[in-house]
Amino acid sequence: MRCGVDVGGTTVKLGFVEGKKIVDSFSIVTKKETLFDDIFSKIVEYTKKNNIELESIGFGIPGIVRDNYIVKMPNIAISGIDLNVISKKYFPNVRIKASNDANCAALGEAICDTDNVKSSYFITLGTGVGGGYVYDGKVVDGVNCACGEIGHMFIDHIHNFKCGCGLSGCLETVTSATGIVRLAKKYYSEFETKIPAEMSAKDVFDCAKEGDQLGVFVLNMVSEYLAKALANLAVVVDCECFYIGGGVSKCGSILTDCIKKYYDKYSFYATKDTKIKLAKLGNDAGMIGASYL
Amino acid sequence: MRCGVDVGGTTVKLGFVEGKKIVDSFSIVTKKETLFDDIFSKIVEYTKKNNIELESIGFGIPGIVRDNYIVKMPNIAISGIDLNVISKKYFPNVRIKASNDANCAALGEAICDTDNVKSSYFITLGTGVGGGYVYDGKVVDGVNCACGEIGHMFIDHIHNFKCGCGLSGCLETVTSATGIVRLAKKYYSEFETKIPAEMSAKDVFDCAKEGDQLGVFVLNMVSEYLAKALANLAVVVDCECFYIGGGVSKCGSILTDCIKKYYDKYSFYATKDTKIKLAKLGNDAGMIGASYL
Repeated sequence: MRCGVDVGGTTVKLGFVEGKKIVDSFSIVTKKETLFDDIFSKIVEYTKKNNIELESIGFGIPGIVRDNYIVKMPNIAISGIDLNVISKKYFPNVRIKASNDANCAALGEAICDTDNVKSSYFITLGTGVGGGYVYDGKVVDGVNCACGEIGHMFIDHIHNFKCGCGLSGCLETVTSATGIVRLAKKYYSEFETKIPAEMSAKDVFDCAKEGDQLGVFVLNMVSEYLAKALANLAVVVDCECFYIGGGVSKCGSILTDCIKKYYDKYSFYATKDTKIKLAKLGNDAGMIGASYL
Repeated sequence: MRCGVDVGGTTVKLGFVEGKKIVDSFSIVTKKETLFDDIFSKIVEYTKKNNIELESIGFGIPGIVRDNYIVKMPNIAISGIDLNVISKKYFPNVRIKASNDANCAALGEAICDTDNVKSSYFITLGTGVGGGYVYDGKVVDGVNCACGEIGHMFIDHIHNFKCGCGLSGCLETVTSATGIVRLAKKYYSEFETKIPAEMSAKDVFDCAKEGDQLGVFVLNMVSEYLAKALANLAVVVDCECFYIGGGVSKCGSILTDCIKKYYDKYSFYATKDTKIKLAKLGNDAGMIGASYL
């Protein structure tokens, strides 16, 4: 049995995993002061109660982590934590490994893909846009732990919106949930629409499904930007497939179908057949991936 | 002793390599009809004459190669050659391995870098623009053998020149030797210049070194495009360093210095320190890299 921990800003998800299956899972509230002691205590409690011998514990961290040392978790305002030291207190003989949370989700999706995928790029569309690269069945962290920060590829010269990172025209500014709302508001007066003036990204794509003019316009625009980004990714790493995940992807195949239409237009001929798939594991991807680190 | 073979459109370079050093090298003319028999005969002749036992033979192929099978070499108009079969005739007990020529050059540069580089991206600026990705000390071929085809990243929305590949705005259209001349001709009448009307890329950058207005303008434009491409590469793979190689890079540090200036402007904060280096091995990179496959 392995344990995969997906650390989030409001809750931490713990999964006990056998093979590719989550046997049991728990959520605990993220408390900054006692975060990792809370996590390890819960694991100790579960393993003792069920008389389980753990093989390993993996952590998906929302931030920068290097050799199991957490450099920074911006959203939880925690930095400088050595997981090796903490884990020794609770599990002196269990292997542990930590990586970025998007990387863990990427690994989870790749491992649970029945197509036996060895190289893939995962794109998560949420409040921001992130990603993770899996090569030869393993996560690529990158020398600065910045591999997968594809939300900050330059992609939009048309609006060139300022990004939170300081740059302009980043993929994130036009394809995150926030970016989708930003575009819908920008073009709000130019189309007939049933989208409410104070909308969410879900409202925009729900309306697009029903043929709403503004909704369809924004869906196409977002998909075109994503397709351009994937076309660039494809020549850089030439992976087997792309996974589209995160909250925005819950709208389903309407998004991936639209991305595919533009991908065919913008992709280099040798990479035209790269598969574009909806991520399947949802919230479980992080736990499963972490357990495979 | 290992042998590295760099197959080119007009000549084939053969290097006999010990450690990281080329002990002996030969050039033979590329004859389409007898290409690989010529190559193997030369290797047999050399090894017999010098009483050498070969460990391995590596091939850098200007085209698509998969599991030692040459799918296509467009510039030599050869396709469908199984190197395993041919090599068995000459060297039944010697390991062979083939990869794309830009990948081999990338591997050569990485291996001969004294900084002990494990992950790097090589960009070659020649008639076209290509590249190669080395991760964990090994070449990444990609599922379509298209990894490194970064000449076909979309990068230029300003001129949006048509590319030979069928797309528009590709990096190659504005940063290859041909692309540099294309830009210089486009802006020829707008600046005072000593660059001849029928120029080469070398003329443009030679004049830039002397402060020529048009030359400096084009150098900056080319560097800005390259910097944007590198900034995107950095968030996708987050490698330790970039190598700038190919004929165009012979102009030296004036190019890499100018790229660095724009890279600092366009790169994501976490990847600002990624090194940008001039490739050092020149024509030997392919042979050395091939010998390390």
